[in-house]
Amino acid sequence: MRLVAYEQEGRAVLGAKVGDAVVRLSDVVPGLPQDVNLAIGALDLPGSASALQAKLPGAPSRPLAGLTLLPVVPRPGKIVCIGLNYVEHAKEGNNPIPDYPAVFFRGPTSLAAHGAPLLRPKASDKFDYEAELAIVIGRRARHLSEADALSCVAGYTCMNEGSLRDYQRKSGQWTMGKNFDRTGGLGPEIVTPDELPQGPNALRITSRLNGQTMQDSNTSDMIFSVPRILAILSEVMTLEPGDVIATGTPSGVGYPRKPPVFMKAGDVAEIEIEGIGILSNPVEDEA
Amino acid sequence: MRLVAYEQEGRAVLGAKVGDAVVRLSDVVPGLPQDVNLAIGALDLPGSASALQAKLPGAPSRPLAGLTLLPVVPRPGKIVCIGLNYVEHAKEGNNPIPDYPAVFFRGPTSLAAHGAPLLRPKASDKFDYEAELAIVIGRRARHLSEADALSCVAGYTCMNEGSLRDYQRKSGQWTMGKNFDRTGGLGPEIVTPDELPQGPNALRITSRLNGQTMQDSNTSDMIFSVPRILAILSEVMTLEPGDVIATGTPSGVGYPRKPPVFMKAGDVAEIEIEGIGILSNPVEDEA
Repeated sequence: MRLVAYEQEGRAVLGAKVGDAVVRLSDVVPGLPQDVNLAIGALDLPGSASALQAKLPGAPSRPLAGLTLLPVVPRPGKIVCIGLNYVEHAKEGNNPIPDYPAVFFRGPTSLAAHGAPLLRPKASDKFDYEAELAIVIGRRARHLSEADALSCVAGYTCMNEGSLRDYQRKSGQWTMGKNFDRTGGLGPEIVTPDELPQGPNALRITSRLNGQTMQDSNTSDMIFSVPRILAILSEVMTLEPGDVIATGTPSGVGYPRKPPVFMKAGDVAEIEIEGIGILSNPVEDEA
Repeated sequence: MRLVAYEQEGRAVLGAKVGDAVVRLSDVVPGLPQDVNLAIGALDLPGSASALQAKLPGAPSRPLAGLTLLPVVPRPGKIVCIGLNYVEHAKEGNNPIPDYPAVFFRGPTSLAAHGAPLLRPKASDKFDYEAELAIVIGRRARHLSEADALSCVAGYTCMNEGSLRDYQRKSGQWTMGKNFDRTGGLGPEIVTPDELPQGPNALRITSRLNGQTMQDSNTSDMIFSVPRILAILSEVMTLEPGDVIATGTPSGVGYPRKPPVFMKAGDVAEIEIEGIGILSNPVEDEA
């Protein structure tokens, strides 16, 4: 199943795709909470995905093309990002291979929907792309073992974890460079785990800037796999429905290239992950 | 005016103190949104504080003592924390005086209400206290100048920005050590700016562990003042109603002491800020 978030009468609404149409989930799940994070929790994914899928045929729907999409989780309680999680990416920035993940957070104000512009801010022109597999949490979880970690995953989506490289390095903490408004694409859809029988760690992941391939790797090259990330994070914090975890980017980002490549107004950035889809965003200057 | 958040029938509710009693704000502000962050935005503080205060006398109220308090903002959209913002604290950890703030985020799962236990996790016994002045945002704001920065502040509160020092240093990013469940006290009240005529940067700030003073400083010693922090952050990100900004801790934390001092089960940690109040939390071991 493939879930999207969109705007309807000023509210964020969760829907499921049926071909080129979308069924509003509150039309087929009685009593679904309005809040998207609570709704994701009430759906109780991933286990309930097939039962939910069975309710979709024949339900009222609307064309996907007419919807104003939102980031697939519009306001996650936490957006947890893993840095330096691919060996070749660590090497290209002259970083050592980590034995514990570098973790930072983004805020919801940093997100952009599939199709919406990523904003290059006034303050910096060092706007870099980062293709990432993102996990959407479906069930509250703490102290997960690697063996049972995937039981909390509602689904997966693509992220362009856009980063302003100069602000990322103004202090030892990367947070500021990762939190400019609308610099992080998230979408186009939450893909439930039943659609990825090979699991999350055998997926080709690529980024393209104006059609040119910039990153081309596989999630099997992660230093910390998806189950390992979930176990490490949940040792520390409760993961909640709607939380998003960005799992790090492979090599090929713009800043270490000679000459460096950064995103600018008029560009189109795409993140493609096998079995999940293509996240596409135009780039605009902040007004 | 002094605002508290408490639980009523499973929901978070915002109230205003009148002596030892609390008036539910939705009883005096028609149409106030249920969501606390949206409610804080709808109140349009700080400008509306006196008009709101005038509605409180005679309104139905309940005793403060009977309420189950929540963190004063139970689920902030962002909890932005400033590191190393007092000269003597930077020195005690052998850190250079920064020319740009070190910024990291906490998630809502890391918060604890006034009076609720702070949890020392199973994973670490290096649980340190940090007295901090916290800002609660009342109005959406971006690109603030220092001169107009305080216009977005709904009020101030106390934070014990509890930190697991070993997890803080497992990578170069501090986020994990700052995000164990229920390690950060936030409260007891949001104090609106009209109650602090001297402003936020002339307040004595202290912490006590089991009655013994551990930190004793003044917010006038901040490297980056409250208006400067708001200007720097809003260059990067939109500040939204309900966002919380922790402004850094003065010297006297536990880890650099000889021998080091850490919080353990049975301790009581207090943060007191002049004109704001006392945040008090017992310490318990994670179950």
